Amino acid sequence: MLEFAHNVIRDSMSTSKRAIQDLYPDDLAHCFGCGRNNPYGHQLKSFSEGDEVVAHFTPAAHQISIPGFVYGGLLASLADCHAMAAAAAAAEAAAGRRIGDSPAPRFVTAALRVDYLKPTPIGVELEVRGHVTERSEKKAIIAVTIAAAGTITVRAEVVAVRIPKSME
Amino acid sequence: MLEFAHNVIRDSMSTSKRAIQDLYPDDLAHCFGCGRNNPYGHQLKSFSEGDEVVAHFTPAAHQISIPGFVYGGLLASLADCHAMAAAAAAAEAAAGRRIGDSPAPRFVTAALRVDYLKPTPIGVELEVRGHVTERSEKKAIIAVTIAAAGTITVRAEVVAVRIPKSME
Repeated sequence: MLEFAHNVIRDSMSTSKRAIQDLYPDDLAHCFGCGRNNPYGHQLKSFSEGDEVVAHFTPAAHQISIPGFVYGGLLASLADCHAMAAAAAAAEAAAGRRIGDSPAPRFVTAALRVDYLKPTPIGVELEVRGHVTERSEKKAIIAVTIAAAGTITVRAEVVAVRIPKSME
Repeated sequence: MLEFAHNVIRDSMSTSKRAIQDLYPDDLAHCFGCGRNNPYGHQLKSFSEGDEVVAHFTPAAHQISIPGFVYGGLLASLADCHAMAAAAAAAEAAAGRRIGDSPAPRFVTAALRVDYLKPTPIGVELEVRGHVTERSEKKAIIAVTIAAAGTITVRAEVVAVRIPKSME
């Protein structure tokens, strides 16, 4: 029975070809990191892929810390927005819906822990992967990795909470 | 004796009127968060003030998560860059130099932990405060707070390490 439920979740999470951030309600899609309605932002796009959520992002040449290396604040931002998308996808799956069937639920960040394992080189596409490690109705914990040219350079753990009424 | 050393540190940290980031060597001042040589970046400016390092920053209208509130990735970025400045000031003080006597030592981020205590409103100037809680020759731990209109909305703990040779 658990296996069956697991397969339902896997199936429901792998069907959308639209980015999770593009399923956020219009009035909650202005995020500087990932909102489709923010023309000045990074516009990160995260996609469900089985139990994981995956994004690809190529930082701009000026998004550096030291010349040659990606700015850590940007990497934290990617982990942050990606984790909110993973939380949304997992919430939809747990509710028995396919992500994309209805507007994606909006989570916000309660805590962010980022470990910079090694410098992340600029000039290559980054792969961001995330999966939910724990969740309840109102909260999720998401593990995120960021890899450059196949090497994981960043690990993050992010705590997401359902958007409080006061922010809507 | 310890008290004397403490006073020397306090004195040497409170004298510079220039932002710590403006004392980084020219070839290490391109950071997207705080580099004076990055015209596209946030250009955070942190100043020594006694044992603390203080910065003021007003996010742009588009740097939001949800309309009305500052983007968490930006807040993480401010904490990050501010902490590196605090590490640099503390290293200079510990070496018996006044910050500004010579180029400021450059630290990079090893780990970042950010707790979003409450939503940070957009449209007001933020005050970022940091102080070093632990340090050795190569590493420092910095506690950072971000306040909006007198209320602390973010607490961060940042691990800074002296820039490795491989990144210079």
